[in-house]
Amino acid sequence: MKTHTLLMPLDMHLHLRDGVMLENVAPLSTFTFSGALVMPNLVPPVETLADVRAYKGRILAAAPNDFFEPYMTLFYKNYDKAFLESVADDILAIKLYPAGITTNSEGGVSSFDIEEMRPTLQAMSDLGIPLCVHGETDGFVMDREAEFMNIYELLATSFPELKIVMEHITTKEAVAMLDKFENLYATITVHHLLITLDDVVGGMMQPHLFCKPIAKRPEDLDALLSVALEAHPKVMFGSDSAPHPQHKKESCGCAAGVFTAPIALQLLCEIFDQFGKLSNLQAFVSDNAQNIYGICPEFKEVILEQRAFVVPDNYNGVVPMYAGKAIGWALQDVE
Amino acid sequence: MKTHTLLMPLDMHLHLRDGVMLENVAPLSTFTFSGALVMPNLVPPVETLADVRAYKGRILAAAPNDFFEPYMTLFYKNYDKAFLESVADDILAIKLYPAGITTNSEGGVSSFDIEEMRPTLQAMSDLGIPLCVHGETDGFVMDREAEFMNIYELLATSFPELKIVMEHITTKEAVAMLDKFENLYATITVHHLLITLDDVVGGMMQPHLFCKPIAKRPEDLDALLSVALEAHPKVMFGSDSAPHPQHKKESCGCAAGVFTAPIALQLLCEIFDQFGKLSNLQAFVSDNAQNIYGICPEFKEVILEQRAFVVPDNYNGVVPMYAGKAIGWALQDVE
Repeated sequence: MKTHTLLMPLDMHLHLRDGVMLENVAPLSTFTFSGALVMPNLVPPVETLADVRAYKGRILAAAPNDFFEPYMTLFYKNYDKAFLESVADDILAIKLYPAGITTNSEGGVSSFDIEEMRPTLQAMSDLGIPLCVHGETDGFVMDREAEFMNIYELLATSFPELKIVMEHITTKEAVAMLDKFENLYATITVHHLLITLDDVVGGMMQPHLFCKPIAKRPEDLDALLSVALEAHPKVMFGSDSAPHPQHKKESCGCAAGVFTAPIALQLLCEIFDQFGKLSNLQAFVSDNAQNIYGICPEFKEVILEQRAFVVPDNYNGVVPMYAGKAIGWALQDVE
Repeated sequence: MKTHTLLMPLDMHLHLRDGVMLENVAPLSTFTFSGALVMPNLVPPVETLADVRAYKGRILAAAPNDFFEPYMTLFYKNYDKAFLESVADDILAIKLYPAGITTNSEGGVSSFDIEEMRPTLQAMSDLGIPLCVHGETDGFVMDREAEFMNIYELLATSFPELKIVMEHITTKEAVAMLDKFENLYATITVHHLLITLDDVVGGMMQPHLFCKPIAKRPEDLDALLSVALEAHPKVMFGSDSAPHPQHKKESCGCAAGVFTAPIALQLLCEIFDQFGKLSNLQAFVSDNAQNIYGICPEFKEVILEQRAFVVPDNYNGVVPMYAGKAIGWALQDVE
C-alpha cells in the first residue's frame, strides 16, 4: 500500500473554541499535528497575558499531549509596547479582525487608520511579533477579500519589517500579493483547495461548506492550488477548522465555518498526490511555517496510506467536511 | 392611510406543485392574483394534453375561484406540429429547461442543437405559442445566466417570429438583451428586486433566500430594478414562487426556491413606492403581460395599504421569504 510520511505537521490557523467544544475538538488536532496557531476569537476575546495563559492551560487540559504545542495569539487591539514586551514570550502572533467580519469579531478593528495603529504595529515589528489578518472588507461577499488588498499593501509598506500573514486566502488577488511584498505571507485552508462557490450554492445549499471567506471562483481555486502544490515558501497550511454545534450549521441562519481538523492531512495527501506533488506537502504543511515563524516543534511522525476512508458523520457531535463521503487517503492504523 | 389599487395582477411564473403542497399553496395565489402561468416541472413533467387538462383540474379543485385563471404550460421536448395544434388551445406557453438545471428538470434539453429543435420551435412560432426558458448553463454558479446569452441570441435570431421569454432574469447581461432582440421578453421575480448573493451567504447562510438562478451582484440588482421600476414593456412580473416543505429548506442540502406568492404584491408595492414608481406597478404586474401574451383576465381589484405587516412564520407549513419580518405594505382587510 502506498504510504506517505509527514514530520511535525502544523496547522497555522485553528479554532479550538472553549468549554465543551474545546474538549470535543482539541484531541482531534493534537492527535495528528505537532502544533497549531490557536485563534483568539473567544467570547470575550483573548487580550491579556492572563487570558493567554489561562486559555493555553484549558487547551492542554482538554487534550494533554507532550507532542503538541498550542501556539497562542492575542486578539488585535491597540496595545502599548510595554504590554507587548510582557506578553511576547507567551504568544506567537497577534490576530487582527475587521469588526464584525466573522464569528466573534465584534471587538475588531473598525477603521484602518494607520496612524492610530502605528504604535502597536511598530512595537510588534520591533519585537518580531507577526500580525495575522482576516483580510475582508464589508463589501459584496465575492469582492471582500480582493477589496482588502489595498489595506494589505498599506500595512506591508508602512511596516516593512513586520511579518504580515494574510490568513485563509481565497482569491487570485491575494496569491498575487505574495510576490509583490516581501513581508506578506499567507495561510491556505484545505477546503479552499477543494471547493468553489459552486460547491456551496451551485447545487443544493451545503451549510457544512459555508465559511468566511466564502469559497470563490474556479480561477481563484487554480491560483491557490498553484502556490500550495509548489509549496511556495511564503505559504503555510492553516485549516481554519471552525467547529459549530450541528444544530447551528443545519438550520435557518447557518453559522460560518468548515470543520476539517480531523481529516485535513488525509485530504491534503489526496490533493497533493492527485497532482503528483506529494513531495511538496512536507514544506506546505510544516517546513514553511517553521521557517516563517522560526519555530521548532517537537518531533512527530504521521504516516498516511492510500486507501478508501469514509469520513465519519460526526466527530464528538461536530459534522466534518465531507461527512459520509469516501476519500482516498487515511491515517495509518485508524479505521 | 395611503392605499394603492392593482387591477388583475398576474404572476407569469409560478410553481404550484401537486398533491398536498398544491392544496396548501394554490389558494394563496388565487386570493390575490387574476391568473398565473403555471410551471410544468412536476414528477413526471406535464407533457401531454391529458396531463395539462388533469393538472388544471387539480389546480381548480385545490383552489376554486371564479376570478383566477391558471394559464397552463407544457414541459418542452421535441413535439410535432400536429400535437402542438391539438394542445394549443389548452396552453399559454411551453417551458424549456436545460436538463438538470433546477428542481425536477432532469428530462430537459441536454444540448441546444437548433436543427434538432427546429421542427418544434418553428411549429410553436407558426402557432403563436411562446417559449419560456430557464436560461442557465451548467457553468460556475455566478456565470450560468450570463453564459446562456448566446443561446438566447441563437434562439431569437433563428426564430424571429417566436416570442421567447427569458424567465426569472437575474443579471445585467439578460437585461441588456431586451433591447437587442425584438422577440426576447423577460419575467423578473420580486426577490431578485430585493436581494443579492450577500443576503444569501454574506452574513449567516439563509436557506429561504436560496434559489435558482441564485441572486447575483449589486450591479445586477440595479439593472433589474431599472427595467422593473420603469415597467419596461417587455418585462413582466413572475414570482417564481417555489414552495418546499420546511424540512427540505432548513437542512443539510437545502432545496432551491423562494416562497413569495402570498407576499409578492405587498413587497412590490413597498419597492415601487420606495422608488416613487407606484404608478408603474400596474404595467409591471399585469398590463405588460396582457399585451405580451394577448390575454384578458377576469376583472379583479386588489387594494393594498401602507402599514406595517409582519410576514407570518409560515403559510400552511411553508416558510415564506422574510418570515417574521415587518414589511411596509399589506393587503386591505388582511391582518
